[in-house]
Amino acid sequence: MFKLILIRHGQSVWNLENRFTGWTDVDLSDQGRAEARAAGKLLCELGYEFDLAFTSVLKRAIRTLNRIQEEMDLDWIPVIRAWQLNERHYGALQGHNKAEMADKFGESQIKIWRRSYNVLPPALELIDERHPKFDRRYANLTPEQLPAAESLKITLERVLPYWHSVLEPTIKSGKRILISAHGNSIRSLIKYLDNISDMEITELNIPTGVPLVYELDENLKVIKHYYLGDSEEITQAAAAAANQGNTKTY
Amino acid sequence: MFKLILIRHGQSVWNLENRFTGWTDVDLSDQGRAEARAAGKLLCELGYEFDLAFTSVLKRAIRTLNRIQEEMDLDWIPVIRAWQLNERHYGALQGHNKAEMADKFGESQIKIWRRSYNVLPPALELIDERHPKFDRRYANLTPEQLPAAESLKITLERVLPYWHSVLEPTIKSGKRILISAHGNSIRSLIKYLDNISDMEITELNIPTGVPLVYELDENLKVIKHYYLGDSEEITQAAAAAANQGNTKTY
Repeated sequence: MFKLILIRHGQSVWNLENRFTGWTDVDLSDQGRAEARAAGKLLCELGYEFDLAFTSVLKRAIRTLNRIQEEMDLDWIPVIRAWQLNERHYGALQGHNKAEMADKFGESQIKIWRRSYNVLPPALELIDERHPKFDRRYANLTPEQLPAAESLKITLERVLPYWHSVLEPTIKSGKRILISAHGNSIRSLIKYLDNISDMEITELNIPTGVPLVYELDENLKVIKHYYLGDSEEITQAAAAAANQGNTKTY
Repeated sequence: MFKLILIRHGQSVWNLENRFTGWTDVDLSDQGRAEARAAGKLLCELGYEFDLAFTSVLKRAIRTLNRIQEEMDLDWIPVIRAWQLNERHYGALQGHNKAEMADKFGESQIKIWRRSYNVLPPALELIDERHPKFDRRYANLTPEQLPAAESLKITLERVLPYWHSVLEPTIKSGKRILISAHGNSIRSLIKYLDNISDMEITELNIPTGVPLVYELDENLKVIKHYYLGDSEEITQAAAAAANQGNTKTY
């Protein structure tokens, strides 16, 4: 039996400002840093150990991982940074306030862009300075790999090959791994692992900074999954994530 | 022409307490964290860029690197943690106060253990819980690779193969690298690069948290080297490093 631990980065400055982030390289907020440290302390208290960690090339996930490693005294384990674990690319919405976009396009359109499985948000133009082709961290990607916008479906189409080629064999080799990633890269992985329908996945929300444990059998089929920590706090955090993008707070 | 940037980790808690550290996994002090951030800011202001970073498997070097990357907004570059870049193993002296050891064994003996090129400090016994064989981060090392004590010469004998097999080809490939390491792993590398004699190297001190630039030609022969930052502060920091282990402060 294997265990895989996933964590969505702590709250970012743009989570706090309710802005579409995507591949924009936004830092953690003070709360996000505290969430990351709390997650590290919790994993440590519960006796978790890791041999290897994976993260995206975005600082909010990396800095979350750094803080977890510091709290667990596991600074020394190898860390692999993979663009394939990046957040979903939000295209031309990146940088815009979610509530303002809801006022402009209507809440139902925003909901479609945010939560539909296969609808792409408006794409970045190739000359837009926000396009990843202008960022040297993506210099080794082919033009086909460089997104101008991604749906959750498209996100899954880059997460899944990484799962099969790298993560799956690493887990099967017996290495205990931690993945510090993003709401939508984690959602797409969960969709695959738990075989969630295109419809159901639209209602799934991942709280920030809460370790999510997957217990997997020898074929990496899911036995069960659960969050670590106080269940009421987790429910509230997931609800907070779900409510972003609405002009009203429930 | 290539540039290689070396940095000794910021002040550690045991630098501050004047204790022999070696492979003991001691954290940075507050001052050490500040030194690391200042180094990152300085590298950023001076326009340095890196493609890849190397560090040891000891947290004081890793946490120094983390802070430099945060300040430079380079969290995303790959980081390789290599035990070969660890501090010199100080054997049975690890954990002991330098001044107390000087009172017990005499200053000249301490100077020999600290600064001679090829004299080993007293070795750890194989059953000593401080022996690296009990630390899972070294589980892949052979018994011959696991030190119970190291002289600077022995340290060089593990740093140099790593230089030739990994660092040299990486630099020659054009990658701009930063190495966050330790007083003695850096001294041993410098001894090789600058062809410093066994005698002269005993007087060379590396200040904590100050970037040291090596300009290298196409064959990686040294063109010149220099510290970045305020030269008076650097001289004082190097003198502070040199004076540790004396019962008197000059």
